[in-house]
Amino acid sequence: MAARALDGTATAAVIRQELVPRVAACVDRHGASPGLGVVLAGHDPASEIYVRHKLKAAAEIGIRAELTRVSADGHVDDVLAVVAQLNQRDDIHGILVQSPLPPGMGDDAETRVIDAIDPAKDVDGFTPSNVGLLVQNRKGLVACTPAGVMELLSRSAIDVKGMRAVVIGRSDIVGKPMALLLLHRHATVTICHSRTRDLAAVAREADLLVAAIGRPAFVTPAFVRPGATVIDVGINSVTDPGLVRSWFPADSPRAAAFEKRGALTVGDVHPAVADVAGALTPVPGGVGPLTIAMLLSNTVRAAETRLSR
Amino acid sequence: MAARALDGTATAAVIRQELVPRVAACVDRHGASPGLGVVLAGHDPASEIYVRHKLKAAAEIGIRAELTRVSADGHVDDVLAVVAQLNQRDDIHGILVQSPLPPGMGDDAETRVIDAIDPAKDVDGFTPSNVGLLVQNRKGLVACTPAGVMELLSRSAIDVKGMRAVVIGRSDIVGKPMALLLLHRHATVTICHSRTRDLAAVAREADLLVAAIGRPAFVTPAFVRPGATVIDVGINSVTDPGLVRSWFPADSPRAAAFEKRGALTVGDVHPAVADVAGALTPVPGGVGPLTIAMLLSNTVRAAETRLSR
Repeated sequence: MAARALDGTATAAVIRQELVPRVAACVDRHGASPGLGVVLAGHDPASEIYVRHKLKAAAEIGIRAELTRVSADGHVDDVLAVVAQLNQRDDIHGILVQSPLPPGMGDDAETRVIDAIDPAKDVDGFTPSNVGLLVQNRKGLVACTPAGVMELLSRSAIDVKGMRAVVIGRSDIVGKPMALLLLHRHATVTICHSRTRDLAAVAREADLLVAAIGRPAFVTPAFVRPGATVIDVGINSVTDPGLVRSWFPADSPRAAAFEKRGALTVGDVHPAVADVAGALTPVPGGVGPLTIAMLLSNTVRAAETRLSR
Repeated sequence: MAARALDGTATAAVIRQELVPRVAACVDRHGASPGLGVVLAGHDPASEIYVRHKLKAAAEIGIRAELTRVSADGHVDDVLAVVAQLNQRDDIHGILVQSPLPPGMGDDAETRVIDAIDPAKDVDGFTPSNVGLLVQNRKGLVACTPAGVMELLSRSAIDVKGMRAVVIGRSDIVGKPMALLLLHRHATVTICHSRTRDLAAVAREADLLVAAIGRPAFVTPAFVRPGATVIDVGINSVTDPGLVRSWFPADSPRAAAFEKRGALTVGDVHPAVADVAGALTPVPGGVGPLTIAMLLSNTVRAAETRLSR
């Protein structure tokens, strides 16, 4: 592997440690620790894991995190009622509704729930007004994954000013906010997606390539200019042994991990990109840990803002 | 001139005519014509002209447009008070505060005033929540100039799907919303700006090039791939005879217009681009008329939404 590994786990640990004295200051000055309300509807296995991680990470730095469950066969109004209560409570500074909501709640359930969250408590940065503030480069709560990527870049001394940046993926929660954050740091930004023609050639223009499409090993060396920095936002669970064998040598730790568990978490970037890129985020241990760190950071910031009013 | 001229004046006239029966329907069904409240602080000469044009265009299609003036040496609170009144009134469906506000009102005056406008009446599409809805590709009120460009493209049978689009300029009111609208219509979008390296080379990648930087004749033929569609958003008033002579032959109508008035309105695109581009918006008569047409369209839409509640 030629590429420098950008260590998200270590960077996330630093960010979390920096939050500890700020949490303590909330208690000292205002007699209140930051409070995070997490809402989980149903029992999606991946969601259960994510929520457990978030609650644990919050507790570790002194954030009071509490979980409210809604039945899997509940109505979207049940979720909205929980959100309304959390909006009202003075001891709750951040609200997070774990996605996805159960399909039975309807196609527009996620949108209705997000729109119901008080923007000052919207620690996921998903409400329209926070998204609009991001576009306008004003202070607001920014989506955790792209915010985490920016932290990783700056703390790795990678200055994006003047760089050609290519973002593959145009989701509301990663691709679009990522592009805007890079733009505000003076990168020249291109957003690609499923309709982009000759995607590999466009990606090769990038000094900084962000892969956020949710397709395992989609970004091959043909997409990467030698020496480019590659950020892998993908978190894909793969269960096909043939695919795993095609990516990892039989005697590698990754192949062994797959043998043991029957599933492997891989990114959107093909392992062979490590031989071409100048710097690369691993999966796991790259962007993932930063997402949770930024959730905590947003919660502390929301608490500081509210408590100091 | 080789390039096909994209006639904004004609397209704007069509859009305005399409609004006439919708205004009539508001009156027939709800007994109320759409109402637009325009706020003008001070006496900036360009603002006076813009506001007069907007009021006239609104009146022509049956929108009740009224102007409230605030003194040039007034306080931002005076503007905020007018906005608060317009927010409250049932007969006002759209609110527009002409920019710029007098410098004496402070650096944050524009932001404070925009934030105070009811998003449902924000016919300029400048409030954070409308901007956020745009990012999320949801129904909201969209900034008039980029919305007008999209109308001109689609009504000129130019389908941007799969095109490489390059937007030069990253303003909140043109560049960024323009990029988002093109992205949602499935273009591969690059946003360039003052920090972009080798800007001409990046621009030459474009099948569709949008110039929105506010620098007269900045985009020369070196920026344009032969056959590309070029959208000129610039509206620059030039008073330097040497510049005008360098762009237009002495016997041209444009040179004659300059001789007569001592000033000439030119775009961000150099006249010689007409020999390279496949299609081009003229200035004047390109994007400008569409901006006002979309303001009227937004006002009618805001009225329809409110009246049919």
